[in-house]
Amino acid sequence: MWDCVLVRYSEIAIKSRPVRSRFERILVNNISLALKGCLRDYRVQRKWGRIVVEAKNTDRVCERLSYVFGVVSISPAKRLSLRGLPKFVERNVSKLVQKGPFAVRVTRVGEHSFTSRDMERKLGEIVVKKTGKKVNLKEPASTLHVEIREKDAYVYNDVISGPMGLPLGSQGKVYCFVNDKLGILAAWLMMKRGCRPIIFHTAPVDELDRWSPGMELEKTEISSLEELAERAKGDETPVVLADTLNTASIEGIKADDERFYCVLRPLIGYTEDMVKELRKRVLG
Amino acid sequence: MWDCVLVRYSEIAIKSRPVRSRFERILVNNISLALKGCLRDYRVQRKWGRIVVEAKNTDRVCERLSYVFGVVSISPAKRLSLRGLPKFVERNVSKLVQKGPFAVRVTRVGEHSFTSRDMERKLGEIVVKKTGKKVNLKEPASTLHVEIREKDAYVYNDVISGPMGLPLGSQGKVYCFVNDKLGILAAWLMMKRGCRPIIFHTAPVDELDRWSPGMELEKTEISSLEELAERAKGDETPVVLADTLNTASIEGIKADDERFYCVLRPLIGYTEDMVKELRKRVLG
Repeated sequence: MWDCVLVRYSEIAIKSRPVRSRFERILVNNISLALKGCLRDYRVQRKWGRIVVEAKNTDRVCERLSYVFGVVSISPAKRLSLRGLPKFVERNVSKLVQKGPFAVRVTRVGEHSFTSRDMERKLGEIVVKKTGKKVNLKEPASTLHVEIREKDAYVYNDVISGPMGLPLGSQGKVYCFVNDKLGILAAWLMMKRGCRPIIFHTAPVDELDRWSPGMELEKTEISSLEELAERAKGDETPVVLADTLNTASIEGIKADDERFYCVLRPLIGYTEDMVKELRKRVLG
Repeated sequence: MWDCVLVRYSEIAIKSRPVRSRFERILVNNISLALKGCLRDYRVQRKWGRIVVEAKNTDRVCERLSYVFGVVSISPAKRLSLRGLPKFVERNVSKLVQKGPFAVRVTRVGEHSFTSRDMERKLGEIVVKKTGKKVNLKEPASTLHVEIREKDAYVYNDVISGPMGLPLGSQGKVYCFVNDKLGILAAWLMMKRGCRPIIFHTAPVDELDRWSPGMELEKTEISSLEELAERAKGDETPVVLADTLNTASIEGIKADDERFYCVLRPLIGYTEDMVKELRKRVLG
């Protein structure tokens, strides 16, 4: 039934118009790369603070986009003309409203002769008439969402969380040193922060690949942190290390700070519980 | 009805017996300090991987403990002898099982002539008989929990989340530089990590006080980061700064690293979204 995917992204981190525009361009590009090669027909469009992906296989789109940083949430949806909306709901009511009591939620942008409330009531009546189901606005078992934009309407049921963060490559490059799983987590955090990672590894880092779908990560196998220090001599690119207060001593931190131009340690405030939770999220 | 509070804490971060024991001692001490001065009668006891606080005003205990780092979750509970359990449930059934379908969950440590399942069934039957309510193990509207330890039973309904982390003061001391809200968040993260903070501030830091209930934080007002650099000269205590990639440049990070013995930046991997969420959590 679905023929597109609504992609929501954050604008909080965006201050000025040009920065926001750049952020959106990178995100659209990353989404296109993620879908290229795994889908035949699709179209990625920027619209009113949303990105809309038109595609037949919306499951596949959702699966890929759940690994694209910068995506806040996604919804497989059906695009309709506003005029066709009531008829569509009537025809597909059994798919749109499944078990138990339901709710209709309408959001609206543009000038219309009705309020969002009016439309919720109208569609709700259609559902009740066709199915006999009860309305429950507080704790519905299923929700029929409608996003109305001028003369278009997007109908959807689910809101699936994305990985959040900033689009990969929207921030500067960093050298990530990976010699264990913690190293992967530290690199992941900086990737989520938008940085473009260049990976120097003594251990396998394949787990990072799925977090840059459609984009090859830059990787170099090395033998030790000393080797990275040697290679990075005179280089002002920040180096990402996986130190936590469990694994590193203050003296060790001091020594590494002197060895590199600049060291970033995204895990330094993490407890083992937090690391464990992050591991589950990143490594599955 | 409740006469004690069950406190759950994490053991994941604990490797060896002596470290774990030290961790528990600090946590028990922090809990006692948090309750002292705001409660008259209470007793804090370590028991089988739990801490039990006996007190009349369990609401007050829960409120205070929700700001004690190291606490994973808390439950206002009633302590009973195992023999008195069925009678107690029968008498208090209307308070223990409120709206809608219910479930009974029993956990058990020690040798008993019955299984946990047996006890769940037995208590469930009492509830059904007295109230006519339905059992729903999958999605109960209310749950009657029973924790059985040898000849004791603890009955409770709610599991309230604690702040997690490690007990304040279980790790080394850090100098926290606070000149804005971000500085408070950075200090908070290291406090949650167990560090003992010594606060150098140019802006108010009162919001941190409630996260060390019953313990006075060490604070010094200063005029600038330069002043801290001056004071910390020759001192190997790590300095906590609130840098994110939004607020700091790589050059600035480099410069501060040279100014102090060792700098920790717990926010370096945070996006603005993550900062916003943390703000809500810490500053309310």
